[in-house]
Amino acid sequence: MYNFKNDYSEGAHANILNKLLETNLVQQLGYGDDEYTSAAKALLKAKIDNPQVDIHFLSAGTQTNLLVISCLLKSHEAVISVQSGHIYAHEAGAIEATGHRIITVESMDGKLRPGNIEQIVQQHTLRPHVVKPRLVYISNSTEIGTIYQKAELEALSHCCKQYNLLLFLDGARLGNALTATNNDLTLAEISRLTDVFYIGATKNGALLGEAVVFNRPDIYPDFDYALKQKGALLAKGRLLGIQFLELFKSNLYFELADHANKMAMKIADATRELGYDFLTHSTTNQIFPIFPRHTINELHKKYLFFEWKQVDEDHSAVRLLTSWATPEKVVDEFIFDLKALQ
Amino acid sequence: MYNFKNDYSEGAHANILNKLLETNLVQQLGYGDDEYTSAAKALLKAKIDNPQVDIHFLSAGTQTNLLVISCLLKSHEAVISVQSGHIYAHEAGAIEATGHRIITVESMDGKLRPGNIEQIVQQHTLRPHVVKPRLVYISNSTEIGTIYQKAELEALSHCCKQYNLLLFLDGARLGNALTATNNDLTLAEISRLTDVFYIGATKNGALLGEAVVFNRPDIYPDFDYALKQKGALLAKGRLLGIQFLELFKSNLYFELADHANKMAMKIADATRELGYDFLTHSTTNQIFPIFPRHTINELHKKYLFFEWKQVDEDHSAVRLLTSWATPEKVVDEFIFDLKALQ
Amino acid sequence: MYNFKNDYSEGAHANILNKLLETNLVQQLGYGDDEYTSAAKALLKAKIDNPQVDIHFLSAGTQTNLLVISCLLKSHEAVISVQSGHIYAHEAGAIEATGHRIITVESMDGKLRPGNIEQIVQQHTLRPHVVKPRLVYISNSTEIGTIYQKAELEALSHCCKQYNLLLFLDGARLGNALTATNNDLTLAEISRLTDVFYIGATKNGALLGEAVVFNRPDIYPDFDYALKQKGALLAKGRLLGIQFLELFKSNLYFELADHANKMAMKIADATRELGYDFLTHSTTNQIFPIFPRHTINELHKKYLFFEWKQVDEDHSAVRLLTSWATPEKVVDEFIFDLKALQ
Amino acid sequence: MYNFKNDYSEGAHANILNKLLETNLVQQLGYGDDEYTSAAKALLKAKIDNPQVDIHFLSAGTQTNLLVISCLLKSHEAVISVQSGHIYAHEAGAIEATGHRIITVESMDGKLRPGNIEQIVQQHTLRPHVVKPRLVYISNSTEIGTIYQKAELEALSHCCKQYNLLLFLDGARLGNALTATNNDLTLAEISRLTDVFYIGATKNGALLGEAVVFNRPDIYPDFDYALKQKGALLAKGRLLGIQFLELFKSNLYFELADHANKMAMKIADATRELGYDFLTHSTTNQIFPIFPRHTINELHKKYLFFEWKQVDEDHSAVRLLTSWATPEKVVDEFIFDLKALQ
Repeated sequence: MYNFKNDYSEGAHANILNKLLETNLVQQLGYGDDEYTSAAKALLKAKIDNPQVDIHFLSAGTQTNLLVISCLLKSHEAVISVQSGHIYAHEAGAIEATGHRIITVESMDGKLRPGNIEQIVQQHTLRPHVVKPRLVYISNSTEIGTIYQKAELEALSHCCKQYNLLLFLDGARLGNALTATNNDLTLAEISRLTDVFYIGATKNGALLGEAVVFNRPDIYPDFDYALKQKGALLAKGRLLGIQFLELFKSNLYFELADHANKMAMKIADATRELGYDFLTHSTTNQIFPIFPRHTINELHKKYLFFEWKQVDEDHSAVRLLTSWATPEKVVDEFIFDLKALQ
Repeated sequence: MYNFKNDYSEGAHANILNKLLETNLVQQLGYGDDEYTSAAKALLKAKIDNPQVDIHFLSAGTQTNLLVISCLLKSHEAVISVQSGHIYAHEAGAIEATGHRIITVESMDGKLRPGNIEQIVQQHTLRPHVVKPRLVYISNSTEIGTIYQKAELEALSHCCKQYNLLLFLDGARLGNALTATNNDLTLAEISRLTDVFYIGATKNGALLGEAVVFNRPDIYPDFDYALKQKGALLAKGRLLGIQFLELFKSNLYFELADHANKMAMKIADATRELGYDFLTHSTTNQIFPIFPRHTINELHKKYLFFEWKQVDEDHSAVRLLTSWATPEKVVDEFIFDLKALQ
Repeated sequence: MYNFKNDYSEGAHANILNKLLETNLVQQLGYGDDEYTSAAKALLKAKIDNPQVDIHFLSAGTQTNLLVISCLLKSHEAVISVQSGHIYAHEAGAIEATGHRIITVESMDGKLRPGNIEQIVQQHTLRPHVVKPRLVYISNSTEIGTIYQKAELEALSHCCKQYNLLLFLDGARLGNALTATNNDLTLAEISRLTDVFYIGATKNGALLGEAVVFNRPDIYPDFDYALKQKGALLAKGRLLGIQFLELFKSNLYFELADHANKMAMKIADATRELGYDFLTHSTTNQIFPIFPRHTINELHKKYLFFEWKQVDEDHSAVRLLTSWATPEKVVDEFIFDLKALQ
Repeated sequence: MYNFKNDYSEGAHANILNKLLETNLVQQLGYGDDEYTSAAKALLKAKIDNPQVDIHFLSAGTQTNLLVISCLLKSHEAVISVQSGHIYAHEAGAIEATGHRIITVESMDGKLRPGNIEQIVQQHTLRPHVVKPRLVYISNSTEIGTIYQKAELEALSHCCKQYNLLLFLDGARLGNALTATNNDLTLAEISRLTDVFYIGATKNGALLGEAVVFNRPDIYPDFDYALKQKGALLAKGRLLGIQFLELFKSNLYFELADHANKMAMKIADATRELGYDFLTHSTTNQIFPIFPRHTINELHKKYLFFEWKQVDEDHSAVRLLTSWATPEKVVDEFIFDLKALQ
């Protein structure tokens, strides 16, 4: 059985494991004060092209989301997100557990737009009886594989400034977004257009690791305290530093994401040619083709994947996720099997 | 410079890294549903000699402490700990951040006794104006290297039952406690005498990892939700499972801890022979010899370590921590240098 | 200007103020241990016809909602409510601030139905990635003046038991519900069909006061601690005890609510006769007639009231709230003015 | 039995109840937007001699303490208090429940001094492993009846500025402090020397009410949201406004406190003349004479009071609290009875 359920089914890219072995017995200071972490931060600052950013390494996406959001908001302030946003749909109420409401809007393509924000702001004026919208949460790529174009992110950024809202971009799959064929954004532009964002590595070849970037050093200077207090500070911070160093010292981070995207697009192209439709127009490593029941059942004999949404009595959209580690021959085999089912 | 500051200055034991490499491309389910995690849990249950325990793997000690305590307590319930307890002294208010007071008592040897508990219970009866003591937190080994004898843990366990208190044992350095020459406890006995405890691996040869053990399955059956909600659930749970598997499939966990202890005891014996006194009577991998100022200054030229406490105008106790990775020849060199300073 | 904006524009019923004066210098124990509070609780237990209930007096509806819900839920457990529910629409995120998500459903008539609950339960099975629905919140009367029939409450109660959900009834306007002409419920039945509910007095003739009723004593025996810890325990608890004693020692509580309802129905009947339509079919003290813009503007010259919802370009529904203190001659005058505007 | 246990055994000063009756049917806006609240705030600003202050009325001391402290602190920031401070000793962990540690120091006379603060600051430098002291909590009068002299408050104020700490003064018994014979502070000076303080009325003749004063409007401009969200906003805010108006439109607030002090001092003087010693040197309405066991037992036949602390085998300090409502003839009778017991 090959698993197309997610992009974290394997361990880490070999370079990372080799570097862990190579540096294993070099003594380092704990809690992120090691040399690898420092070097990785310096490297990321250069890639982001902004020496003023404040960077911290965390272990997981939910951890990052809850820490960033709870640090930036006062108790009565709320988050705006699309309903499919990871913080609303798949984090077990992590944000509410820190005391904040998530105000959601439905979005067919997983993307938030200035019009959504304006409407929410206008619905929340009966002070002090309603929460105060204060932070906009978006993901790039989104939970359904779409990406933000530069013009879209600029419009959101402008809208947030207008309404005194912070803009936070969840980049758990940022590599996949930035290597999509229709992408026109860079790390530097994302840093310029958001208040905080993060660069996800767990889903792009690391054992674990998310690099959160505060784009101005005064946004939350006490984030180190928060890391420690919420249990997110690793004694062996080197584990995170080494991984980001390996992923970014060359172009590895983007190469791995590009591979994942290409594998998904190869399946998507073949699927489209076979006449199947899609739930969303994804250009990254997760695609949502719509198959008849029989096809799904047959594919499930050889492949693991999620049934995402029932479309009609006989058809459902499934989610196929490829990763940095997906072998092209598995992709070819899947396409072969799919063709055989017609 | 050799670093005696802590037991997490190096990476992980070679067996762990090799196993990570060996299993790297085997696809596994995410979030702790992988085969390695299952196998590691089964192995630990056998070692603990209790098939009913509920085991979860976490990344760090503070994370474990705050998750366990916040799950087990209602809002007005409080924790009892010695003042030097890690949750009070070094976790940035992590427990209070989850809403609970830590009631502390001073303890010269880092250990809590039934008499301390009784006194605190008696001081907290003015319901509902005072908090309700509900959980007793101890560490084994303690923050200053001492360990609990079986009779002491039995007395604590009995006292907790008498006052309807939960007993939680922080085992960040449990390996060091259980391999100390004066230890008379086993994993199985600790499981029988406490409500919850954990087996720390971060400080004993793992990259990261703490195995929390609920000794009865009904103590908090929803801990999986808590793990996810607080950001403690790793997508690649295999990283934790593999490490515990490697540490416990043989006797490696205890061998590593034993080595750390022996290195510390070798320094302690030599130091004692040279006529120096100690702040505490430690039998594990952290020792607190008292040196004159000049000696400390000279040692600091070659070794990193903490000055723990000033004893008089010219003397301070220092903390020397050895680990699974401390080479015996460094220990010998340190002893040689110390002798030369007399 | 007469104020139809709410039912808390005046002070308290004269009986209450007179009793406060009469008992003013009688010394009493503090924090709810006074004789009036004891007597009021005994009286309510008799009215509820259940000696086992556990009753506590609080100061305000939001305070009551947040205390009850936060005591009854674990961190990852969530509340189900209609979108117009007070906890979602008008409490500044009070529930989320205690750490819990409110899962909402739209409801035209302000009422929740078993089908809503079932759907939500079915959407929240992906453990541990989604919150766990655990408590159902309803109001009687609802935020838009409708009430639950006995059969409806029985159906909800049954559905909650089936899915292991707690049923909590917000009775901020319970008096208005129980005196509505179409009501077929009693206090005793509400106690039998819910887990917790409260009897609101702030909106029915008291200066302040909500009596929360836990229908079984084991639901949350430590609620006294919660009251103190969250700042809800009044030093002079007599202030609450005396008020409930006055409201319930005779039939005053229900007489006041009945008056409020009658005043609203009188306006509603006249409005209907004049040919105006309504947004909802209310039988209690808040009604939502739909008026043309011109009529609203004219009425606003003499009366304060909320514009609730725009219906079309020229029409809006307004909210008119009557109270225990609304003089019938003001009602007559309003009807007269409304007729004159045709 | 006469009750000397506390200063909230009676209702409210007659002026307050009469004003409640007089204004009872005047319609007012809800949630503190009524005319009485506005007038009371204006009056207090004048008394404080600072038009810039931001004033809010709350219901209880614990409520006020937890709201102020939780609004002013970030998650990892801590409070400094004496061990006998109300927030530490008698509020059921209310501050910790909002996420913050209280760092305590012992103090024989209930007062905090700059030396205490300096020591605590110096002990909390191991960032990010320890909490960050950020707010100093004091009470005037203290929990044991002593008061701060102007020079003492100036020294604290200066020390707080030096270490970037906020100074918060709990004035639950501020009237008693400001009318003590050894007082040399004014409301205006307290406003100048602290960041936030409150003027307690619950313990000085009101049914309930604490007026919190933010001495600069930018300290926490969103406090109205916090009031609503934490359940502290009363629908009938007039209840608080009217009471403060009555207490401060004349000198009533200070006259009531002065009376309470005089009654306590009369007992204290007589007790001292009889040769009894005291636990503390109080100049306000709570005194702590030390009596032999026999005397305590005899007094308990006619009077309610707390036994505060055992002094030796045969002697204990008791707490006698007088109030605005304590009749002088009861005081005389107590003195008579005490004399008779010699």
